[in-house]
Amino acid sequence: MPASAGPTVASPREAPEDTPVPLAGGSHGPHALHPLLDTTLDALAQGAATRAGPFPAGGPEAVTARLRALAAPALPETGTGAHEALHTLVSALAEGAADPAHPHCAAHLHCPPLALAAAADLAAASLNPSLDSWDQAPAATALETLTTRALAALAYPGRPSADALVTTGGTESNQLALLLAREAAREAAGEAAGEAAGEAAGEAGEAAKEQAEGRAPAPLRVVCGANAHHSIHRAAWLLGLPAPLTLPTPTGVLDPATLRTALTELTATGAPTLVIATAGTTDTGRIDPLPAVAELCRTHGARLHADASYGGPLLFSDTLRPALDGLDQAHTIAIDLHKLGWQPVAAGLLAVPDTTALTPLAHHAEYLNAPDDTRAGLPDLLGRSLRTTRRPDILKIAVTLRALGRRGIGDLVERVCTAAQHLADLIEAHPSFDLHARPTLSTVLFRPTGTDDRTTAALRRTLLHHGHAVLGRTTTPEGLWLKATLLNPHTTPDDLRTLLTLVEGQVRR
Amino acid sequence: MPASAGPTVASPREAPEDTPVPLAGGSHGPHALHPLLDTTLDALAQGAATRAGPFPAGGPEAVTARLRALAAPALPETGTGAHEALHTLVSALAEGAADPAHPHCAAHLHCPPLALAAAADLAAASLNPSLDSWDQAPAATALETLTTRALAALAYPGRPSADALVTTGGTESNQLALLLAREAAREAAGEAAGEAAGEAAGEAGEAAKEQAEGRAPAPLRVVCGANAHHSIHRAAWLLGLPAPLTLPTPTGVLDPATLRTALTELTATGAPTLVIATAGTTDTGRIDPLPAVAELCRTHGARLHADASYGGPLLFSDTLRPALDGLDQAHTIAIDLHKLGWQPVAAGLLAVPDTTALTPLAHHAEYLNAPDDTRAGLPDLLGRSLRTTRRPDILKIAVTLRALGRRGIGDLVERVCTAAQHLADLIEAHPSFDLHARPTLSTVLFRPTGTDDRTTAALRRTLLHHGHAVLGRTTTPEGLWLKATLLNPHTTPDDLRTLLTLVEGQVRR
Repeated sequence: MPASAGPTVASPREAPEDTPVPLAGGSHGPHALHPLLDTTLDALAQGAATRAGPFPAGGPEAVTARLRALAAPALPETGTGAHEALHTLVSALAEGAADPAHPHCAAHLHCPPLALAAAADLAAASLNPSLDSWDQAPAATALETLTTRALAALAYPGRPSADALVTTGGTESNQLALLLAREAAREAAGEAAGEAAGEAAGEAGEAAKEQAEGRAPAPLRVVCGANAHHSIHRAAWLLGLPAPLTLPTPTGVLDPATLRTALTELTATGAPTLVIATAGTTDTGRIDPLPAVAELCRTHGARLHADASYGGPLLFSDTLRPALDGLDQAHTIAIDLHKLGWQPVAAGLLAVPDTTALTPLAHHAEYLNAPDDTRAGLPDLLGRSLRTTRRPDILKIAVTLRALGRRGIGDLVERVCTAAQHLADLIEAHPSFDLHARPTLSTVLFRPTGTDDRTTAALRRTLLHHGHAVLGRTTTPEGLWLKATLLNPHTTPDDLRTLLTLVEGQVRR
Repeated sequence: MPASAGPTVASPREAPEDTPVPLAGGSHGPHALHPLLDTTLDALAQGAATRAGPFPAGGPEAVTARLRALAAPALPETGTGAHEALHTLVSALAEGAADPAHPHCAAHLHCPPLALAAAADLAAASLNPSLDSWDQAPAATALETLTTRALAALAYPGRPSADALVTTGGTESNQLALLLAREAAREAAGEAAGEAAGEAAGEAGEAAKEQAEGRAPAPLRVVCGANAHHSIHRAAWLLGLPAPLTLPTPTGVLDPATLRTALTELTATGAPTLVIATAGTTDTGRIDPLPAVAELCRTHGARLHADASYGGPLLFSDTLRPALDGLDQAHTIAIDLHKLGWQPVAAGLLAVPDTTALTPLAHHAEYLNAPDDTRAGLPDLLGRSLRTTRRPDILKIAVTLRALGRRGIGDLVERVCTAAQHLADLIEAHPSFDLHARPTLSTVLFRPTGTDDRTTAALRRTLLHHGHAVLGRTTTPEGLWLKATLLNPHTTPDDLRTLLTLVEGQVRR
C-alpha cells in the first residue's frame, strides 16, 4: 500500500482544477480505483490503530474538536488532491468511529458489515445504476427482481406472487406499510361510497357517486403497542394520519386481551384499522404473539403490519424460524438486512404476499416511464419506491446471499443469539449484576445490582467517554437497564467476560 | 489482481457456512477487504470489456435472461464463497450496466461518479456509522455538521446560521420542503387561532383556545409549474395535502404574470401557500426566473422552495453562479450532488437559511436521544432526517470537496455546460437535425428534421436496443425530442460528433 502522502490525481505539471479527475466507471475505472482503494484501506487501518478500541475517547467535545482540526475547511478554494483528501478524512472518520466490529461496541441494532458486502457495495457506487428507470439500470433491475422475489418467498412461503421493495430501512418500510394501509382504506371507502351512491341513483348516478366519494372517509387508525418502534408514530404524522393508539405493553409484548378490547371499540366506530406487531423490539428483542395478533386482526377486519426489522432474519435459520410463526399472516412485513444480515446501511425490505398489494405506489413521469416505452417492453420501475434516483442496495445483498447461502446466513444469526444466551448466563452467575430477562434474540438487558437509574445512565456515558465500551439503554417498568445488542458473529465468550469486567470496573470507582 | 477463480473465504478444511466470514471493520477489516476488492475490480473490468459500449445490447428480455442465467438462484441453500459470488454478480451487473462514464450514455441526470468518491464510499460502508445517534457515529456526526454548514453557506451566502440536511436525493428534499411548509402553516394557524381565542376569552380562555385550535386549518396549497419535478406531486399525495396547483409553462419556465394571478386568487382565500421554483428542469435544464418569483412570494406572503437539484452546483462556478441569482431568497433549496457533483447515489441536500427552520423535524426516541443524555452533551441527531438508521453519505461528499476544492468542482460543472453548448453548435450546423433551443445547463434537446413523435420515440428505443447510445426524451409544445443530458466532464467534441453520427445512422435505416 502506498504511504499516506501518495501521489495526487493531478500530474506535477497540472493544477488539480485543470485535470480531468478519473471516473469510477468505464473501462478505465477499475485501474483508476486501484491506488485510491489502497489509500482508503491504509487510512482505515491507520484510523483503527489510532483508536485502538471500540470507540474514541474523550466525549463529544474532544472528538468533534479533533475531527474539525483535521477536516476544516470543508470546502477549500483549491483542492488538496485525491490521495491527501481520502487519507485525511477516511483516517479521521475511522479514528473517531464507533466500530461495531469490536465486540465491545454493542449498543444498537448497528451491525458490523461483512467485508464481502462492503466490497460489493463499491461496485454499486462505481457503476452507479439508478433504479428509477430501466435505461439507467438494466441488469440491476433484473437482479433486484430476482433477489427481492427470493427474499419475499422466505417471508411468505407458498405465495408465488410474494414481492418485496428495497428500502432505506425499517423506518421507510414502516412508512410504506402505513401508506399502503392508508390507500387501501381510501379505496375501500371510495368503493363503499360508490356502491351506496350507485344503489341510490342507479345507472345515472355519477354525480351522486362523486358527491358520496367526496365525503372525507374516516381516516385510518393505527394501533400499536408501547413496544413499537418510534418510526410508526413519525410515519403517521408524516402521512397526515391521527396519532397511533398506543396500547400499554408492561411485559414488553402486545397483550392479545388488550388488543381485543381496543379493536372491538375501534371497529365499532367503522374506522379502518392497521395493527402493528413487532418481531424483535428495539428495546428488548422480544416478539409479539404473532398468531394471536393475526387471528384478532382477521376477526376484526383489521390490517396487520409486522415490523420484523430486527427479528426477520430468523427466517434464514432452521432452528430459530419457528419463533416467527404467524409472520406470514401480515399484510406487510419490514425486514432489515443491515441489522441481522450484516449489510452496510442501507438494506431494508418491505415484503408483501402479492405484488398487486403494491399498486397504490404506481406513479407516472413522462421522462422515466412514458406509456409507449412501457408498451414497448421497457420495465417501469417508479412504483418500486417513493424515491426517484435509487442506489442498487440489492447488489451487496445478492452477493451475500450467494456467497453464504441460506444456511450460512442462518448460522450467523444463530451465533449472535447463542452469544446473547451466553452473556445472560454470565450475568446470572455474576454476583454484581442483575439480568432483566432471558434474551429472545440477541439483546440482553442488565445492570449493576442495587443501582439507581441515574447511576446506570451515567455509567453508560462514562464507558463511552473512556472509549471502553458502547452499550445502549432501555427503560422498562423496573427502571433503566444497560442494553447489549450483540450483532457481531465473531464475539467470543472471552469478549463477553471482558465486557462485564469493564462495566464492573466502572461500578467500583 | 488475482484471477477470477480466487481463493474463497473459507480455508480448504472448512465449509463456508462453518467459517466466520470476515468483517469489513476492526483492525483486521482492511486486510480482509484487500483480496475482495481485487476480485471486485477484476469483475468490473471484465464486465465493462464484455459490454464494450455504453449499454448492453438486446433489449430488456435478453438482458434479463442473461442476468438470470448468471445469478439464479438468488438464495441458494449453501453458499458459493465470497470470491465466486462477488465475481459472478459484479461482472454480471457491469456487463448489463448503463455506464454513465461512457460519453454516449447521456439520457438522464445520472452522473458518472468520480473514482475518489467511490473509494471514499467504501470507507463509509466498511465503518458503517449510522447517523441516528452520536454513539453510532461520533466523527461522522462532526464531519456532517462541518460539511453541511459549508455547503449551506454556499447556497445562502452571508447567513451564518444556514444549515443543510443530507437526503437520498431531490425527491426526499422536495418532500421535506413540503413537510416543513405544511408544519409552518399549521403552526401559524395554531398561533392565529390561539390569538383569536385569547382575544375573545382573555386569560381564562384556554378551553376556547383549544377549541379554536381544534378547527382544521386550511391545508397548505402547493403551487408549481408544469415544468416542476414529478416528486412535488408525489410528495403532496404522501403528506395528505391537496394536489398542487399546476401552472402552464409553455416556454419551459414559470411565467411571473401567470404566477401573480394564481397567487392573488389563492391568497384571497387565506390558504397558506408554497410556491415551487425549479433551477434546472429535468426536461430542458432551464431555470425559473428566481428573482421575480421570489418577489411575488414576498408580496403575497407565500413560502418559496427552490428545487435546484440539477442546477444548484452552478454555485461552485464563478462564471455560472450568476444564473442562480435570487436562489438564496428561497425558504428551502434542494441540491443534488449525485447529478452535477459526480457522487455515487445518494448525495442529496436540503438547505435552509437558518437551522431553526428545521425545528419541525425534532423527534424523540428514548433509546437514541434520552433527555438526560442530551443534557449531558451527547448530540441529538434524530431531527436531521426522517430516516432513523442513516448511512454517512457525507464522507464521499467531504472527500470530493477537499480533493477538488470549490474551483475544481466549478471547473467540472463548466466543462459539461461547455460540452452542451458545443453539442448545440454541432446540431445547428447539421443538415439532418433540429435543435430545440440553446442549452441553459447541460441538457440539449434535438431530433431528426421532419420526424414525427412516434419515430423519434422508436429511434431512442432502437439506439438502446443495439446498445449504441442512451438518450432521454422530452415532450414540449413542439412535440417529442431526444434529450442528451451531458454529465460526463471527459466528453470530447469528437465524442459528440460520433453520437450524432450514431443517431443519424439509425435515421437513415
